[in-house]
Amino acid sequence: MSIDAVDFFYLSMPKVEDIGDGSQDALVVRVSADGVEGWGECEASPLVSIAAFVTPMSHGACKPVRDVVLGKPIESAADIAAIHAAVEMECMDLLQAAHTFSGIEMALWDVLGRKRNAPVYELLGYDKAHPKLPYASQLFGDTPAETLAGCRRAREAGYRAVKCGWGPFGRGTLAEDRDHLQAAREGIGPEGTLLIDAGQIFREDVEAAALRIPLLEEVNTVWFEEPFLGGAYGAYAGLAAKSGKVKLAGGEASHNFHMAQQLIDYGKVGFIQIDCGRIGGIGPAKRAADYAAARGVTYVNHTFTSHLALCASLQPYAGLESHRICEYPFAPKSVAWDMSETHLTPDGDGLVHLPAAPGLGITMNPAGMRKYMVDIEISAHGKALYRSPKL
Amino acid sequence: MSIDAVDFFYLSMPKVEDIGDGSQDALVVRVSADGVEGWGECEASPLVSIAAFVTPMSHGACKPVRDVVLGKPIESAADIAAIHAAVEMECMDLLQAAHTFSGIEMALWDVLGRKRNAPVYELLGYDKAHPKLPYASQLFGDTPAETLAGCRRAREAGYRAVKCGWGPFGRGTLAEDRDHLQAAREGIGPEGTLLIDAGQIFREDVEAAALRIPLLEEVNTVWFEEPFLGGAYGAYAGLAAKSGKVKLAGGEASHNFHMAQQLIDYGKVGFIQIDCGRIGGIGPAKRAADYAAARGVTYVNHTFTSHLALCASLQPYAGLESHRICEYPFAPKSVAWDMSETHLTPDGDGLVHLPAAPGLGITMNPAGMRKYMVDIEISAHGKALYRSPKL
Repeated sequence: MSIDAVDFFYLSMPKVEDIGDGSQDALVVRVSADGVEGWGECEASPLVSIAAFVTPMSHGACKPVRDVVLGKPIESAADIAAIHAAVEMECMDLLQAAHTFSGIEMALWDVLGRKRNAPVYELLGYDKAHPKLPYASQLFGDTPAETLAGCRRAREAGYRAVKCGWGPFGRGTLAEDRDHLQAAREGIGPEGTLLIDAGQIFREDVEAAALRIPLLEEVNTVWFEEPFLGGAYGAYAGLAAKSGKVKLAGGEASHNFHMAQQLIDYGKVGFIQIDCGRIGGIGPAKRAADYAAARGVTYVNHTFTSHLALCASLQPYAGLESHRICEYPFAPKSVAWDMSETHLTPDGDGLVHLPAAPGLGITMNPAGMRKYMVDIEISAHGKALYRSPKL
Repeated sequence: MSIDAVDFFYLSMPKVEDIGDGSQDALVVRVSADGVEGWGECEASPLVSIAAFVTPMSHGACKPVRDVVLGKPIESAADIAAIHAAVEMECMDLLQAAHTFSGIEMALWDVLGRKRNAPVYELLGYDKAHPKLPYASQLFGDTPAETLAGCRRAREAGYRAVKCGWGPFGRGTLAEDRDHLQAAREGIGPEGTLLIDAGQIFREDVEAAALRIPLLEEVNTVWFEEPFLGGAYGAYAGLAAKSGKVKLAGGEASHNFHMAQQLIDYGKVGFIQIDCGRIGGIGPAKRAADYAAARGVTYVNHTFTSHLALCASLQPYAGLESHRICEYPFAPKSVAWDMSETHLTPDGDGLVHLPAAPGLGITMNPAGMRKYMVDIEISAHGKALYRSPKL
């Protein structure tokens, strides 16, 4: 088998709002290899990731992703790793390439699994996929009353874990943050798992973030996510030394394995959050999961889009039973729901299971995708470099 | 003053070759603010950086760079830093944004300097710009004889420092590498400063890289550049512990200040190489220079394109007299030369001086640029998102 075609489908809600909801658009990738089709999804900014696939070469270490991927053999996991390594070298100076390749890489695993009649987690070496406890991810309300109402809704919908983030948190007084935190705890109830996401609001200010630790402890917060800029490992480590029972979480922006490794080694996080649509796909994510597990750090997916992305993001730690929490697109926009026929709906115990089916086990829904398709055309010197394919 | 317009000019040689020569294309940026024009340059993959400027928003933390930059006030260095911080937050999930913004940021400094009638290095707090010793950067030849000839040419052209990189180095036997290194030393003469660039060939293999150290010591190599993948700090530190008098160099891929900081703190490099067209512009580069200088690490620019990019890249360490070496586009393609009227030609002592003129002090050459212009058009749903402007 070799890679015959890579097609991108840019889907979007008719209107994208200026809110922290990552499910408003999607870049779905289809890879075809000797008649087998696999699917994947790149995280965020579809147009830019498409451009990275087709851009003219700048020099030998800055090629379009297309030139490195098309025609390559795909018979084994080692082949996927070899293509990834080639992208790292030949697209070295093309920053966006990691995001573009991430969706392709997922689709390559899907192809391989379908060909071998095995779920991807088996190809990764896991005997079985353990169920995960989904957390409902939502924004803080504008007022504590809204935060309370949002958390109640999640609890009533059956979620035993809730994450609140962004919004007013860290932007006002400590008293205001405390009110929101207390409201969140009240909303999810005393037994619920509470996770808080600061959305990088403190940039590098360890002291400002540290002032929130007692408030977080008061409501029994399990993790404090992204208090700082993604690369500010020193700030992470500084806060980790003061955060007591509240563990730090971060890593969603990692666009290679090493960034995840460093956030563990230097940033001292307790939870490493990996987005398979950014880190280079499932292979580098699995490496991060192995690295975390060996160091007592808990791996968790970062997924704020579709169930295709969710399914891909759970594979790297499917076999790690004690790494139990997963991010779950709680109330995605219709584009993220309609694109696939398969959905990973929680069972009666509120747990999420991976499909025990070949590849990623997701059946896509072409009719559902067509409703949201954005037709893109890119030309240079009047000649088309790219036109969105038909589905 | 506020930012009225940002225009991109994508220039390219008619044919881009699959070689490690970064001067084959360029993305020049013009910023207009209340009638003052400033110029900057983004590093590599022009089409993708343009796409990041105009891409539809994916969500509140994944906006096109355009939405964050246009209309912003630009009266002071603090304003430039504030725009940079806004890009970091509002384009958080758009990986390419750092490269796109880097060229814009240079142009903002140019605007500010022209408005204030001061060179950029003065705005950065330096009293004067010290001359730099340029090194000629070239590829290893396919054979040691070619490497010898290339290094002789550089010496005869007046260069007292030469860097050889990429090509066969690290791909064959130790004996072959030794032959190339000996040839390079012979070519530049016993007094020349010799720098070697491995182009990440050893990925994470410390042992393979360490086998080259005695060969590098034998020819009195000053630095050993990018032996590993840019983020493999552990490998850098492992080699640094064994590299004796040969210091490690790296950092060109840093797309924010923290990556430079970490390569210093964790990777233990002796030279930190910053590309102003990638790190977010001149401001973050200056922060990296300050950080390096305070820790006994030598700052050096990474520039493989035009004299506009060169001029911007020298500003952040213009006032650091003992950080003396600079990368110099030794034999750029005509596109990189023709785009500007001003060039930073070495003086009689072979030293490079920054213009003591307002802003970056570079006069662009519109006629020179027009010869290489690539007209780009990007449309979504049949409506133009972007059309290359006329110059």
